[in-house]
Amino acid sequence: MKSAVLFAHIQLVTPLPDGPVLSLANAFVAVAEGEILYAGPYEDAARQRLVERVGSQYETYAGQRKILWPAMANAHGHIPMTLMRNQADDANLHTWLFDLIFPREKHLTPEHVKNGTALGMAEMIRAGTGTAADMYYYSEAVVEAAIEAGMRLNVCFDGKTEGPDGKTHVQTGEVERFIQLCRFAGDGRIVPALLVHSIYLYEPYMYRELAQMAADQQCFVQVHIGETAREVSECLAAYGQRPAVQLAEFGFFQTPTVAAHCVHLDDQERSILAGPGILVAHCPTSNLKLGSGIANIKALLEAGAKVGLGTDGAASNNNLSLYQEMKLASLLAKGTSGDASILPADELIRMATLTAQQGLGFASSGCIAAGYAADLQILDADRPSLWPLGEPNAALVYSSEGSAVESLMVDGQWLMYKHELKTLDEEKIKHEALRSAVHLNRLA
Amino acid sequence: MKSAVLFAHIQLVTPLPDGPVLSLANAFVAVAEGEILYAGPYEDAARQRLVERVGSQYETYAGQRKILWPAMANAHGHIPMTLMRNQADDANLHTWLFDLIFPREKHLTPEHVKNGTALGMAEMIRAGTGTAADMYYYSEAVVEAAIEAGMRLNVCFDGKTEGPDGKTHVQTGEVERFIQLCRFAGDGRIVPALLVHSIYLYEPYMYRELAQMAADQQCFVQVHIGETAREVSECLAAYGQRPAVQLAEFGFFQTPTVAAHCVHLDDQERSILAGPGILVAHCPTSNLKLGSGIANIKALLEAGAKVGLGTDGAASNNNLSLYQEMKLASLLAKGTSGDASILPADELIRMATLTAQQGLGFASSGCIAAGYAADLQILDADRPSLWPLGEPNAALVYSSEGSAVESLMVDGQWLMYKHELKTLDEEKIKHEALRSAVHLNRLA
Repeated sequence: MKSAVLFAHIQLVTPLPDGPVLSLANAFVAVAEGEILYAGPYEDAARQRLVERVGSQYETYAGQRKILWPAMANAHGHIPMTLMRNQADDANLHTWLFDLIFPREKHLTPEHVKNGTALGMAEMIRAGTGTAADMYYYSEAVVEAAIEAGMRLNVCFDGKTEGPDGKTHVQTGEVERFIQLCRFAGDGRIVPALLVHSIYLYEPYMYRELAQMAADQQCFVQVHIGETAREVSECLAAYGQRPAVQLAEFGFFQTPTVAAHCVHLDDQERSILAGPGILVAHCPTSNLKLGSGIANIKALLEAGAKVGLGTDGAASNNNLSLYQEMKLASLLAKGTSGDASILPADELIRMATLTAQQGLGFASSGCIAAGYAADLQILDADRPSLWPLGEPNAALVYSSEGSAVESLMVDGQWLMYKHELKTLDEEKIKHEALRSAVHLNRLA
Repeated sequence: MKSAVLFAHIQLVTPLPDGPVLSLANAFVAVAEGEILYAGPYEDAARQRLVERVGSQYETYAGQRKILWPAMANAHGHIPMTLMRNQADDANLHTWLFDLIFPREKHLTPEHVKNGTALGMAEMIRAGTGTAADMYYYSEAVVEAAIEAGMRLNVCFDGKTEGPDGKTHVQTGEVERFIQLCRFAGDGRIVPALLVHSIYLYEPYMYRELAQMAADQQCFVQVHIGETAREVSECLAAYGQRPAVQLAEFGFFQTPTVAAHCVHLDDQERSILAGPGILVAHCPTSNLKLGSGIANIKALLEAGAKVGLGTDGAASNNNLSLYQEMKLASLLAKGTSGDASILPADELIRMATLTAQQGLGFASSGCIAAGYAADLQILDADRPSLWPLGEPNAALVYSSEGSAVESLMVDGQWLMYKHELKTLDEEKIKHEALRSAVHLNRLA
């Protein structure tokens, strides 16, 4: 159900498409039918837009000591991996993946995937995230969970299955079926993508087939690029080129692409990744935790790349809070460069909202201004850790925790209202996720 | 008031003095008269110890889906700087300190300091911190706030005032008076220390006077060491030696010392700081945020140094959550070394509790075992971001936020009980802190 709401006397923070990040105290924001009708300083104007649209049938949300800003978009993750939270720690990426994760994933079923996805969505909603990217298996189960949750989703499909020749191929019919499912089932909130795990997991001919499929379908691609130094050196040994260069040569980057990690890049790769339609998903927590390194975001931004933030999966983070990623991304850029002025609070706010939403295919989300979609969150600043508030933009990035989010709206629908989840049955989800987790972790 | 409590069927996590970090499911912990009477697997034994001490006058705390572990100790901070939260961001240390902070601090009064300290203590209690180190001005006001809050405090005194010769000197009478105040007023919870800001703020003769005073009084010293590369190069230019070496030459490190930051050290300095009675206070958030760099904690630990965690002040963090510092310290060590196995969860748990408590002068705190002081916290794991819990030790470090703490006990007294502060009037504190903050930030 799409709500009609007047947010009154609230602190508004929002990136503007071609301007700075706006911070407006005592603002009024009017929302109805999934759309932002008004955002600005005038109560009368806000009420008038609401009356024109819905008469007197709207709720007033008291905004004192609260911040209204866009719902965030998680640019990279493997949502069902909540099931493996705190099960595979203090290990480097290759050990983690091959020795700890793959043995668990062998036992996955669509039911487990749905249970883990629903849990991850409950967690993300509680931490102000309205949109997620997902790269995993059993994608229909992930889509189903997203539709129930009401979140926006850019979701991978693994189009490879065994063909009549006994070799693995991309199957056009399967890919088309999944794309149709997303486009029709999700009311515009589900964007399909083709899964291309990385340069190191498939045989060479597969990459050409995948790139051709993306071009034929004009669909998104999600891919890990340059996550570890080992990936780069193995790619150089196999192909004589670095991962992003080799992927471009295979024919990728012709359709919108989410390029996750991008820790180990050279200038040529940064220039490729600055191309149109590419969103770099910076995952600072996961990159540190798996010992992979620190992406040079300053260099990527200077090269013209669009950069969003991702949590990666809960098995390498170990939670799904973009508040943590915003703070960490800013801190790392400052601390590793020795320049505390870079990646200031406003830049992180833009990355986590407008840049990521647009890069994931949601052009109407990520900005609180008339005409945009009603994707927003309310943060309760009435706790000692956010007191005194100071500059609201700095408070969002440097002082906030996900638990301070009290409400989240996506496409005009409340997913959380004053700390209560509205679309998901949290206790049922926890119960089912625990059952799945016990099953997977016992078998591993 | 010291409570008598049986924690029943709870997940216990605690470092042991000469062993690993213990994780025991379905544990029982008995507490009375400020002391831990029993911690282990047997309900009968726990109840018997309680009956022997207090008869039937004890409460039972249901522990399902909760973690009991030691209250944390914040090894370095400037607590009243909560008043400058989110007012001075995205600037390097020297600009931040001289252009943004000092102009505000000119207008401080004891009342402002007390208001800011009370707010910081409310914030720390909410995030599981029972002990803090503080380095600031108007130390009596800080002590007063700590006594009201019931927290443990290692607190600096600035012993320098103008003498009859018109020059600044350390005043024995003032220092002795402050030491007496702490020793008698705080019921053992207040440890006095001598403030030695850093190697770069005083004239050379002052360092000899301060070192002599510390030796005469056999008291703690708190000092910033090697926070920035600039500090090191200026020290080399002025003295021909690096900061820790020069401080040792002045006569420091003969009494217990809290050495904050330690970002820029060489091997000789690490060996000095591994000496007895020295606690290195690692402040990863602040060091990154001010563009200072990343301390090499692995090298410090290998040199034999004892390392705790500090938030530094809220003006350079911008909150006071040791949960954030635990996670960040582990991530940074892994990500900068490329070795994800270093600084595992257990190491961070030990640093934030037992090591820091003992290094700040609280030898009976930081461990949940019979005979230790009743300094403990209860974390509520019944939220999606901590679900499924997985390994409890990993969950504490990698998945938790301060807001998951539901109760905190120090010296047997509840400071927070099921999310309600018991010693502090939170609304009054917020009101008074806001008034002080508005005053300071307007004048700057």
